[in-house]
Amino acid sequence: MLSCANSIRAQRSRIGTLPFQQFVKSFGSESKTSFNYDGAFQGEIQKRKDTSTYRVLSNINHVINDQGPKAFTNDHDKVIDVWCSNDYLGMRMNKEISNAIHSFVDRYGVSSTGSRNIAGHNQVFVDLENSLAKLHQKEACLVFNSGYVANDTTLATLAQKLPGCIFFSDALNHASMIQGIRNGKAAKVIFKHNDLQDLEAKLAKYPKTSPKIIAFESIYSMNGDIAPIESICKLAKQYGALTYLDEVHAVGMYGEQGAGVAAALNVSDQVDIITGSLAKSYSATGGYAVGSFAFVDFIRSFCPGFIYTSSLPPHDIAAALTSVEYLKTSNKERALQKSAVRKLKDALTDSGIPFLSNQSHIVPIMVGHPEYGRLISRDLITDYNIYLHHINYPTVAKGTERLRVTPTPLHNDEAILNHFVTALKELWKKYDLQGLDYWKANGFSVNEPCQFPLVA
Amino acid sequence: MLSCANSIRAQRSRIGTLPFQQFVKSFGSESKTSFNYDGAFQGEIQKRKDTSTYRVLSNINHVINDQGPKAFTNDHDKVIDVWCSNDYLGMRMNKEISNAIHSFVDRYGVSSTGSRNIAGHNQVFVDLENSLAKLHQKEACLVFNSGYVANDTTLATLAQKLPGCIFFSDALNHASMIQGIRNGKAAKVIFKHNDLQDLEAKLAKYPKTSPKIIAFESIYSMNGDIAPIESICKLAKQYGALTYLDEVHAVGMYGEQGAGVAAALNVSDQVDIITGSLAKSYSATGGYAVGSFAFVDFIRSFCPGFIYTSSLPPHDIAAALTSVEYLKTSNKERALQKSAVRKLKDALTDSGIPFLSNQSHIVPIMVGHPEYGRLISRDLITDYNIYLHHINYPTVAKGTERLRVTPTPLHNDEAILNHFVTALKELWKKYDLQGLDYWKANGFSVNEPCQFPLVA
Repeated sequence: MLSCANSIRAQRSRIGTLPFQQFVKSFGSESKTSFNYDGAFQGEIQKRKDTSTYRVLSNINHVINDQGPKAFTNDHDKVIDVWCSNDYLGMRMNKEISNAIHSFVDRYGVSSTGSRNIAGHNQVFVDLENSLAKLHQKEACLVFNSGYVANDTTLATLAQKLPGCIFFSDALNHASMIQGIRNGKAAKVIFKHNDLQDLEAKLAKYPKTSPKIIAFESIYSMNGDIAPIESICKLAKQYGALTYLDEVHAVGMYGEQGAGVAAALNVSDQVDIITGSLAKSYSATGGYAVGSFAFVDFIRSFCPGFIYTSSLPPHDIAAALTSVEYLKTSNKERALQKSAVRKLKDALTDSGIPFLSNQSHIVPIMVGHPEYGRLISRDLITDYNIYLHHINYPTVAKGTERLRVTPTPLHNDEAILNHFVTALKELWKKYDLQGLDYWKANGFSVNEPCQFPLVA
Repeated sequence: MLSCANSIRAQRSRIGTLPFQQFVKSFGSESKTSFNYDGAFQGEIQKRKDTSTYRVLSNINHVINDQGPKAFTNDHDKVIDVWCSNDYLGMRMNKEISNAIHSFVDRYGVSSTGSRNIAGHNQVFVDLENSLAKLHQKEACLVFNSGYVANDTTLATLAQKLPGCIFFSDALNHASMIQGIRNGKAAKVIFKHNDLQDLEAKLAKYPKTSPKIIAFESIYSMNGDIAPIESICKLAKQYGALTYLDEVHAVGMYGEQGAGVAAALNVSDQVDIITGSLAKSYSATGGYAVGSFAFVDFIRSFCPGFIYTSSLPPHDIAAALTSVEYLKTSNKERALQKSAVRKLKDALTDSGIPFLSNQSHIVPIMVGHPEYGRLISRDLITDYNIYLHHINYPTVAKGTERLRVTPTPLHNDEAILNHFVTALKELWKKYDLQGLDYWKANGFSVNEPCQFPLVA
């Protein structure tokens, strides 16, 4: 682990305390036989570089302005258009939220001061949890430090405390759910993505009396497609399973008051547990789970990822509460987002740029190669002042590398849209990338018109 | 999982879509044979209630004021003194930090907009990571959403990517490290708390060439005692192990510039990996790990708890950076904390209230029974307007239940101190609790004077 210079320094500092012979012996044996930790780390990183899956962080500084989805890069010191923000509704610039932060910082200070169980629980947490439980029409809610932690620690704890529980997990579930189920060390059955027949065949193999949890998402992050929630819940009832639905890419945006896809489909009461993010359309930070009183009291009492961590500062909880309440009544942002998504999908179809068909706000533009993904992202920022990060394996399957585009209310401006689509057309030509026919021939549904049937 | 009312409602809604016979059959079989999820959750909760280990959240609202460690309770609507805050240095009210938050919210908006790899990385992250790496004199740093996540995902990823790695874990390690090692599914050897002989005997059983990680803390949260860092590092070098040191209860407070205990002992260069919290003495939110370039690039590239989560908002990172930089130069808070700790330990000794001896700012007052712990916390808030949460199993061993007291710079006021110690004396009498002799007879070192040899 020590760098060479550090290693020499460390050895030198020991010369003063060890007899010389002992130092030589110790130095000799160490340098010969110890495991090479940094070498192992570098080896793993090299594998990523060799497969074009090494990640580089892009320094993107989103600023407050009235000209759209603008940010500046630190390296280039130039203003860019951002097309891959998870600030889905542009709430980042919402004045009510920033006022809430200012006010809480001035009244309560900047820190939560501890875990919820010791000194970090307060009225604004109570208010936020009540607001979220009511939003989803559930009995109770628990807020976590992130959506990732909500899924990870909740699923792991369910696995550990329900002996014999079997998890039925959609093949495209998010890493946080995969980790949670894995960390709980319970039995796991993966069912084909959104495939009811496969799910039923797998459920039917187990006795109805045994505990089972079906873990799935309402909108899948990388495809933007939507789960058959009602049908999955019917199977769950039939086979005695609990339903665990991740709505992180839906809350705020779909259904009356922004309660998500289950609410939009009027099946919230069929779903047992719903998890959501406060860091995407709500533009705050944190995540949560809602369900019955008993379920929430259970996870509050047993999840190590909840118990043994400092809670979020009051100002961030106030930001989340303000945003959730704001989006219960304001429909303006949802309408503007819908409009921007339609405009983009139409323009892409006119230009022959392939994107996966779906009924959501996520527009997966298909590249199909990790290296071209990287080059397109590079060219976009260098030549067009556009930031759009490519998505490679392992986040998506090899051969389906893509640009995940998320138009927000700020992306309705014609000039910004036209500049973006022109750039893509030029790059598709430059790199001779595949068009619609290739993806159709490979069984993908691409460039179907967007209906947005779920949006109120 | 469905409550009774919900279940009936759910069944009713299905009457419209199912033939009546099918409905009756389905309803009948469901109610007879499905696993009772809420019943299982309630059963687990009841076990906690039966053993006096059920946790109740206390609604404590810390406010900005100039009269000390004050908060108000929402239920009682009264002002209280808080004696168990992890805002160790009172930085919660620091004006430079709140100004940084105000300024970042107004300039960059309220949201990070995504994960670090997609759109949530920016200049203030770079600045914070550079500042922390420099603080610990390490090559690089990675910030996580919490200290819990830093330990959990880093240790699990190390376990998964270093085949054959054996973890040597101190018996009193924090839950986040225990979870990380468990989630990584590597071999784990627990050594007796701070016991060099036991650690060496266990290290010696494995070949020097095999990868090994010694995971330990500088200051243990519940005892406040300090690890023999230098000696552990020497054993690590001798047996070819990597050292992983958690300094979450030390950073900001010990060593020059607040770099922690390893820095105070001048052995930072002997430690390979250090993790810290931004949510305790730094009064922000988040956690971090520092180490070699290769190590940090490795965890940045492979930790799912880093990759697949929305990053913290820019204003929280700015708060952390401001606090870390402030505490590199300001010694006022460290001096005032030290003074408050000494005053309290002296007053407790004068009053015959037993606390575990240590050389840190953590004062574990020994109760020795879960029910009395609960009653003392209740009486303190009801009768004395003092908030101090009791610590029970499983956070501490049965029979060692305690009050974990953390005096801060705000606790130097004689009136606040005297009121607290008087309350404890009265409650020790009321419940006829054990004094120093009992704990000494049971092998505990109690009420030794505090030297604070580590503080610069």
